[in-house]
Amino acid sequence: MAMQAQVMYDFSAEPGNNELTVKEGETVTVLNQNVGGGWIEAQNSRGESGLVPEDYLQVSDDDDDGEWDEEWDDARSTGGYGETTGEEEGEATGHTQTLTFIYFKCCISLGFAFSKIPNPEVYLLAKLPPKGKDRLAIYMGDVGPVWLYPQSPLDCVVADPKKGSKMYGLKSYIEYQVTPNTTNRPVNHRYKHFDWLYERLLEKFGSAIPIPSLPDKQVTGRFEEEFIKMRMERLQGWMCRMCRHPVVSNSDVFQLFLTYRDEKEWKTGKRRAEKDECVGPMVFSLIDPEAPELDIIEVYVCRFTKEMDDGVKDLLNVGNIHWKRCTGPLRKEYQKIGKAFQNLSSVFNTSGYTGEATLTDALTAAGKTYEEISQIVAEQPRKDLHFLMETNNEYKGLLGCFPDTIGVHKAAIEKVREGDKMVAAGKITTQDKGTMAKRISIMCYSLQAEMNHFHSNRIYDYNRVMQLYLEEQIRFYETRERGFYETVRG
Amino acid sequence: MAMQAQVMYDFSAEPGNNELTVKEGETVTVLNQNVGGGWIEAQNSRGESGLVPEDYLQVSDDDDDGEWDEEWDDARSTGGYGETTGEEEGEATGHTQTLTFIYFKCCISLGFAFSKIPNPEVYLLAKLPPKGKDRLAIYMGDVGPVWLYPQSPLDCVVADPKKGSKMYGLKSYIEYQVTPNTTNRPVNHRYKHFDWLYERLLEKFGSAIPIPSLPDKQVTGRFEEEFIKMRMERLQGWMCRMCRHPVVSNSDVFQLFLTYRDEKEWKTGKRRAEKDECVGPMVFSLIDPEAPELDIIEVYVCRFTKEMDDGVKDLLNVGNIHWKRCTGPLRKEYQKIGKAFQNLSSVFNTSGYTGEATLTDALTAAGKTYEEISQIVAEQPRKDLHFLMETNNEYKGLLGCFPDTIGVHKAAIEKVREGDKMVAAGKITTQDKGTMAKRISIMCYSLQAEMNHFHSNRIYDYNRVMQLYLEEQIRFYETRERGFYETVRG
Repeated sequence: MAMQAQVMYDFSAEPGNNELTVKEGETVTVLNQNVGGGWIEAQNSRGESGLVPEDYLQVSDDDDDGEWDEEWDDARSTGGYGETTGEEEGEATGHTQTLTFIYFKCCISLGFAFSKIPNPEVYLLAKLPPKGKDRLAIYMGDVGPVWLYPQSPLDCVVADPKKGSKMYGLKSYIEYQVTPNTTNRPVNHRYKHFDWLYERLLEKFGSAIPIPSLPDKQVTGRFEEEFIKMRMERLQGWMCRMCRHPVVSNSDVFQLFLTYRDEKEWKTGKRRAEKDECVGPMVFSLIDPEAPELDIIEVYVCRFTKEMDDGVKDLLNVGNIHWKRCTGPLRKEYQKIGKAFQNLSSVFNTSGYTGEATLTDALTAAGKTYEEISQIVAEQPRKDLHFLMETNNEYKGLLGCFPDTIGVHKAAIEKVREGDKMVAAGKITTQDKGTMAKRISIMCYSLQAEMNHFHSNRIYDYNRVMQLYLEEQIRFYETRERGFYETVRG
Repeated sequence: MAMQAQVMYDFSAEPGNNELTVKEGETVTVLNQNVGGGWIEAQNSRGESGLVPEDYLQVSDDDDDGEWDEEWDDARSTGGYGETTGEEEGEATGHTQTLTFIYFKCCISLGFAFSKIPNPEVYLLAKLPPKGKDRLAIYMGDVGPVWLYPQSPLDCVVADPKKGSKMYGLKSYIEYQVTPNTTNRPVNHRYKHFDWLYERLLEKFGSAIPIPSLPDKQVTGRFEEEFIKMRMERLQGWMCRMCRHPVVSNSDVFQLFLTYRDEKEWKTGKRRAEKDECVGPMVFSLIDPEAPELDIIEVYVCRFTKEMDDGVKDLLNVGNIHWKRCTGPLRKEYQKIGKAFQNLSSVFNTSGYTGEATLTDALTAAGKTYEEISQIVAEQPRKDLHFLMETNNEYKGLLGCFPDTIGVHKAAIEKVREGDKMVAAGKITTQDKGTMAKRISIMCYSLQAEMNHFHSNRIYDYNRVMQLYLEEQIRFYETRERGFYETVRG
């Protein structure tokens, strides 16, 4: 079935660019969601097709479990293709779908060697350079292995987006001001600098730490106020998350981004970062755990993140539907109820009969209360659902990076399990096998430290957003109750 | 376009009766809404057609203004086929519909002579019998002409529906117990007795007083509990309204219905009522106003009742839609939100990370609150909308009777306006013309007394129902607010 998308903002196509002009509120059919570069190929109701920035569209969420490449022993997923129970008989279509899905999962699993996941072999067997000052310390906390956190947490403010231009105004861009709490000195960055930072962080830390994608990909030449505001808010969220990560925030490249003093320092730093060779799985060589030997936990991590991903997507789905209902049909319905009461009041006022002022006043007040409710209902999502949705959206992005990070660990574990065979075949020495065992233990340390970091952040984020959400709900119902109370008591 | 109806209750067709078996929740197409006898001809989705009791169906409200036969100067309705404004250009379909509608209205107006409205001539020109004890007094109150009200208002309770049978159990029926507050002695009546009473009241008073139809027409052989309960409630509402009417409640036939002591008295009374000759427009001969000469007000009355009819139908329409949304999509949506929160809580519980009990408790509590809201939202309409809808439904029925009553007055006014011509043509004497003028004045007295009765009842009924409705709304939002409050404060 063709996927539908809702247009969130007006977008005017630039001539000759294969773009499609769309209007807010329009529904389009998604032709290709994977064009890349932040674009989606879509078709409007008049049959015209072209590219639309993906941030301008709200695509209905589909199951995209295909990106998960694991074979865990999940009762829920085996249930789908296990023995057919009496209840499931006759559900032929569902059954076929499950099989297709499993087949797809296998393909991904088998296709490991061709995937983009970095090969951990370079680290497992490489001769490591001597450890420098650039070490990533892990110690044993109450919850298990944890990263070493800085004494005062890093933070920054992304603000004041300004339109700049170069080439005598031929090209224009938006520059954001980023101010870290350490220097309190603002630096300017364009979106492409954020993107450069993301690429560096992904390259350097991606095997050990899931680096969430930037909130949206490059969309050039759009200066709509609301879009810029939304992008800035999300860049702020992304930067906060990076600041909160002890490894990322302490890295040279991240510090450079936040604190460079002049163009020269920025350029030198950029070159150095791009030449960094300790990237990919080699990042594990920097890890310095307190103690060796740790159990392998990847299956468990994989299961939790997958299930949380499902939960988050589910909440986003129902949240989206609720948002649309509140701002659309519900708002109109309350308006209509309000109008109906007020109309009846107007008619009653023409009766010429005395002594019904109390009644017509009550009807008018009830009508107005409903019109207010209509507005409150339509505005409410921006007050409560917005933060809940943004947080879940952020987590959806973050969770989407886990399969790659976990994939490195999985590949390493497979390699280590083949150790005996490789020794027997004379491919590696017994000493190599010992090295591999030690190194996989370090990888496990890192994964557990990262998971503990993830959990503590998750608990903090969700605690905060739930508190906000529930308090908004109280205010919401209180306002509506008060509206009716005043209608009755006058 | 074919009219659709929603099936409210299961109904099994009796073989050989041209009936159609339908299931609750099914949608059928209405083929003929005017079959009479409480039946509607409908077609199901499989193309089968037959009769279904009209009370088992909820027909979507259409504009049936066609039954209104007036030509008033309504700005709103002329607006529809007046000059086309810039905004309306291109709305060709809407325009055509309006013209069709106007055409239909004209037909009805012209077709006066063939309608069922009683001819007022019999009263305007007849030689009246001497006035007996059976007089309907009208005096001048603060608001104008009013009926003479009894000192203590009549009331009755309809209760205790019992299944009875006759012909050795071959035929069965439901008997209701009716207890008036005057004798406090219950009498039993079957639905067909109510129907007989309605026919008598309509025949006798219909020209002066709109007699609302019985809540539903005869549907034999149905003993579903909910249906009987609903019918009883509505019969109670109908009886209350009749009891509150000073003319109806004081009439011989109504008193007979409420207070007959044995089968013999009932049968004698029935015969006498059926032989009553002072029916139709002749009822005006019983009216005994304090003073003569009154202005003609029929156009004004017609306009008010028409506009109120529109307002009431509008409220019923939006109320129905809201009811359906609350018990359908909204209920499911809140359930889903509740489930999504609870699922996330379950996933979080498997993290193995310590110290997130507060968060998972909050998520679970929020989830449960939403599930409760889902239930509250679905049950709410029965608590608040129900009474608002029932009252409006009753008024829709009552207002539907006004055109006939007003029609008698309209016809009389036309006749009186022709007075001079008729005298010139030698059809009536000058004295006859004087008699007609006096009698139309009495009719106007009666119409104004009836309107004042209607208004005072309307104000009483709507005051009561609005009070109930608004207080329910307060309770509703209070409950929801408290739910979230407890979720936050634990």
